[in-house]
Amino acid sequence: MPGTIVFGAAETARTMPMPVTSKTRGVFAIAPTPFQVDGRVDFDSIDRMVDFYQAGGVDGLTILGIMGEAPKLDSEEAAAIVQRVVRRASMPVIVGVSAPGFAAMRSLSRTAMEAGAEAVMIAPLPSLRTDEQIVSYFSQACDAIGHDVPFVLQDYPLTLSVIMTPSVIRRIVEENPSCVMLKHEDWPGLEKISALRGFQKEGSMRELCILCGNGGLFLDFETARGADGAMTGYAFPEMLVDVVRLAGSGEREALHDLYDAHLPYLRYEQQPGVGLAVRKYVMMRRGAIACDAQRRPGAGLGATARAEVEFLLSRLARHDPRARLD
Amino acid sequence: MPGTIVFGAAETARTMPMPVTSKTRGVFAIAPTPFQVDGRVDFDSIDRMVDFYQAGGVDGLTILGIMGEAPKLDSEEAAAIVQRVVRRASMPVIVGVSAPGFAAMRSLSRTAMEAGAEAVMIAPLPSLRTDEQIVSYFSQACDAIGHDVPFVLQDYPLTLSVIMTPSVIRRIVEENPSCVMLKHEDWPGLEKISALRGFQKEGSMRELCILCGNGGLFLDFETARGADGAMTGYAFPEMLVDVVRLAGSGEREALHDLYDAHLPYLRYEQQPGVGLAVRKYVMMRRGAIACDAQRRPGAGLGATARAEVEFLLSRLARHDPRARLD
Amino acid sequence: MPGTIVFGAAETARTMPMPVTSKTRGVFAIAPTPFQVDGRVDFDSIDRMVDFYQAGGVDGLTILGIMGEAPKLDSEEAAAIVQRVVRRASMPVIVGVSAPGFAAMRSLSRTAMEAGAEAVMIAPLPSLRTDEQIVSYFSQACDAIGHDVPFVLQDYPLTLSVIMTPSVIRRIVEENPSCVMLKHEDWPGLEKISALRGFQKEGSMRELCILCGNGGLFLDFETARGADGAMTGYAFPEMLVDVVRLAGSGEREALHDLYDAHLPYLRYEQQPGVGLAVRKYVMMRRGAIACDAQRRPGAGLGATARAEVEFLLSRLARHDPRARLD
Amino acid sequence: MPGTIVFGAAETARTMPMPVTSKTRGVFAIAPTPFQVDGRVDFDSIDRMVDFYQAGGVDGLTILGIMGEAPKLDSEEAAAIVQRVVRRASMPVIVGVSAPGFAAMRSLSRTAMEAGAEAVMIAPLPSLRTDEQIVSYFSQACDAIGHDVPFVLQDYPLTLSVIMTPSVIRRIVEENPSCVMLKHEDWPGLEKISALRGFQKEGSMRELCILCGNGGLFLDFETARGADGAMTGYAFPEMLVDVVRLAGSGEREALHDLYDAHLPYLRYEQQPGVGLAVRKYVMMRRGAIACDAQRRPGAGLGATARAEVEFLLSRLARHDPRARLD
Repeated sequence: MPGTIVFGAAETARTMPMPVTSKTRGVFAIAPTPFQVDGRVDFDSIDRMVDFYQAGGVDGLTILGIMGEAPKLDSEEAAAIVQRVVRRASMPVIVGVSAPGFAAMRSLSRTAMEAGAEAVMIAPLPSLRTDEQIVSYFSQACDAIGHDVPFVLQDYPLTLSVIMTPSVIRRIVEENPSCVMLKHEDWPGLEKISALRGFQKEGSMRELCILCGNGGLFLDFETARGADGAMTGYAFPEMLVDVVRLAGSGEREALHDLYDAHLPYLRYEQQPGVGLAVRKYVMMRRGAIACDAQRRPGAGLGATARAEVEFLLSRLARHDPRARLD
Repeated sequence: MPGTIVFGAAETARTMPMPVTSKTRGVFAIAPTPFQVDGRVDFDSIDRMVDFYQAGGVDGLTILGIMGEAPKLDSEEAAAIVQRVVRRASMPVIVGVSAPGFAAMRSLSRTAMEAGAEAVMIAPLPSLRTDEQIVSYFSQACDAIGHDVPFVLQDYPLTLSVIMTPSVIRRIVEENPSCVMLKHEDWPGLEKISALRGFQKEGSMRELCILCGNGGLFLDFETARGADGAMTGYAFPEMLVDVVRLAGSGEREALHDLYDAHLPYLRYEQQPGVGLAVRKYVMMRRGAIACDAQRRPGAGLGATARAEVEFLLSRLARHDPRARLD
Repeated sequence: MPGTIVFGAAETARTMPMPVTSKTRGVFAIAPTPFQVDGRVDFDSIDRMVDFYQAGGVDGLTILGIMGEAPKLDSEEAAAIVQRVVRRASMPVIVGVSAPGFAAMRSLSRTAMEAGAEAVMIAPLPSLRTDEQIVSYFSQACDAIGHDVPFVLQDYPLTLSVIMTPSVIRRIVEENPSCVMLKHEDWPGLEKISALRGFQKEGSMRELCILCGNGGLFLDFETARGADGAMTGYAFPEMLVDVVRLAGSGEREALHDLYDAHLPYLRYEQQPGVGLAVRKYVMMRRGAIACDAQRRPGAGLGATARAEVEFLLSRLARHDPRARLD
Repeated sequence: MPGTIVFGAAETARTMPMPVTSKTRGVFAIAPTPFQVDGRVDFDSIDRMVDFYQAGGVDGLTILGIMGEAPKLDSEEAAAIVQRVVRRASMPVIVGVSAPGFAAMRSLSRTAMEAGAEAVMIAPLPSLRTDEQIVSYFSQACDAIGHDVPFVLQDYPLTLSVIMTPSVIRRIVEENPSCVMLKHEDWPGLEKISALRGFQKEGSMRELCILCGNGGLFLDFETARGADGAMTGYAFPEMLVDVVRLAGSGEREALHDLYDAHLPYLRYEQQPGVGLAVRKYVMMRRGAIACDAQRRPGAGLGATARAEVEFLLSRLARHDPRARLD
């Protein structure tokens, strides 16, 4: 329970992480929420998982996103998870605060920022349709959480069924100075990155950090298109870090060689629905979490699927020893 | 704040209301949530509103539904509203506990039942599509809230975009003994009532209370089709009570005369989106609440619309003096 | 078969009907497509139906709309129906040419205009989401049918799930001079009429004819908001004609007295899905068509529903003798 | 124009291709429709394209599917394309006949079978939701096209937003003997193949051919799960043929080596929306069609995207010389 956590001391000890701004670069891992077999939150695994990401070299963490099963938590659990992650992490933490209404969004946002998060992430309500509805939604969301709270705009049409054109994103960015980052998860989305960077070049949009999602399925080209990095939950965050680094140093062939070796498994992990089960299974096999359980409703991983995953990892391990699990 | 409410005494004083079962009959008013102009919950108006419904002769109250702006409340506000309504009402209270996840649904359901509510109401998640997904969702929801908590199944395709066939409703009713009532809000829905009553007649479905929604737009025929009454938020609950009574006593012409007099305004109130603004405005004009404000995002009522409403009420008042407002 | 119809003579005899322009006013009836019991098009009933509408005093006809079961026709049948209606009618005919692709839209549009139709009607594809997609769709549609063909923009979110804001409608109107009319069928839609008329008043949008649909469910107020009339399929087109006339002459009480008398039945006919069955049944009872059959998939009208309709008509007949059927 | 095609002679000369039955195995290529720059159908390229697929070793062709831009054709064009393809092909041809209504579906189906197609393919209407609606739709579709016409059931939730559970597919298969094949395009879909094969093993469903779509994105595992092959439009049909052959001969490592080499490009081609532009571009580069134009509305391929495709092909060519283009 959040109330029983002694907070002050841990907070004092914590090194101040980098703030999240429109100049942020690198890899933010989308962290799952570890559960025990009976569905309770596994707080010990949260610590292990944070350490796992830290060891993997990521630049920050994003928690309580869709892949973090955030809608399956009640408000006290969400608060407790934020506090636990922030205490453990020495890197910036972004907290998903998407909610059916602004009151719940404000509550969680306040909890997150008070606990030491650096920013929040907001997805549009699935019922939004017109450009005006979308733009006005984010303006009202900013009023709700406070204009001093940096926020990440999540653009994820496949799951949310809300389509934001580049112009709509530009309007949101221009009207809300606290919008510092785009979690780019349109699909297909390469042209959208080019369009947004084109807006900046022509001076019609200010600077904006763009981190890409979709499990990394196009990360090999997204950096070349102008993305600043990745924000996704791929179970080998080290690969994401390497790809972004190789993009920065211009080592294109090495980048694609590494990326292509991961792609057969990455594609398997990137399936909607069952993907989270795959990801949690591999994170469990890698020791990052104790148990791959999901809360209901959640897809399990059958024996055949598990064998397929192991087969893919064994093939991957020939190229990338980090995939060797045993 | 819920913590500051002294609870024990009021609870003791409260007469035990009728339980909500599959034999429940009559009119349950869907209550809006009164807000102040600045968006805070108006607890004083909650008391006035409960008294208003009680004076109108309704048999019970349903709170925190879609029309109650439930998704715009945070969890503490929702709890405080439940407690306030239950303390004031001497009739049974049903609490909407629909939520994106089962943890939040369980929390609110527990809060509601502990505060003295008689039942909860659950709508399907808008993302559900197949028969199996819908049936399994309600089975998991029952596991979450506890099989001892009576619940109302909400069938509202227009807003939720989930279509439940009569067979699916029957499966949910048969598999979950705690399902005591259907809030019937399909549109069109007359044949669905007949189909469900046909299931009961042929012995393939147990008894089930059916109360109808949709602002009362077909209540004149729904009772004849076999509905047990209404569960809707029409701003003249007295009319709903009269119609259900006249249906019971077989006074068909009187029923339609009364109903038809209300229909021009009723239809205006039943518009999606703007309907709640109309309803709150008229409830404010009738003295049931102090202020017709909605939380954002919420549709306001322009001057022309207000004049149209006043005009409709003035015409209604020629037939039903209860619509005389001045 | 269209090829066997001798065309020239009938065409010559036909008086040139009024063109459809942005100055058009009045009532255009949305005509159903009469079928025989076995599903074949009933061409004889087409003639009877055209005469029925003509006797009812409507100003024009709209055929092959959604209510006309247009998607259930193949291209030869659609062409034959257009030709039959145009030959019989001495008033302007608008033809629905909505199609999944522009090639089929162009084919039917050409057929319609060559047969003597005055304009076509185009609904947006249900998959359109963003403002840009919608605006660009209508621009491409105009390219397809030809910029010289007057067209009616159909705005029907309830069925098409495409939401067009007033600004988007203005862009379509401004970018496409051949857009002469809006079939207004948003729900709720009163404020949209006011917004569009506001655009014209402030000079940001040119003149546009607005005719209202939705079965007439708000026609009593739509004219006062600035609509030029109705375009809907209500089975008593005479009432629509009367209401528009009374609105023009400022007889407000008489208008509402007549309208309110029709509303109980009108609301019943306006149900989605089953509504067309009700309408065809009443048109058959009134002698306008020989048979109320729909093509599959189509909702039938059960015995109870038929009795409900007869009851509503008998009550209506006390106020409006045109509803007396026997 | 179809009428100008001399048909008899060519038909006589044509070798009878294998019928399409529930025992069909192998690769059916989903063929695009070649257009000229001005949007006219490019009939010469149809011949070249058929020869290209034949040389690639595919077992059959599927035309007028979603990727074949079928909704953008009018009915005469569709008929002409069917006739041209069937005349040229010495393998079985399946024709997509999905349509908004049964009359158009019946017309095209008749045209296709009379021209010499072996089967038709039917996708559910996007508006279908409940199990009963879906099952009843296919039963009515069979009535429309005739119960003697073999048909392929298309299961493509990502694009059609209709979700068919394995039980619903079983009902369709059991109720309609003319259903010979499933175009499996659910995503994720591996468990669905296992579930359907499980039904057959337990004797609750008869034999059914399952060919997989989705651009081949999971073909490496789909065959192992029990699929009989592929039905998709990947621009290197030879690879699909090889993978299905290697699966048959149990050469698992060789299968994955080949598949993984293609995956970086295959994934790029498999993007929704832009994917068809990529596929047509590569087919043009391979000489299969003269021009990669799409009819409006259609996504073009920008210079950066073209460069990305060329880069991916150059990397692929190191492993598979068939990707060498110059």
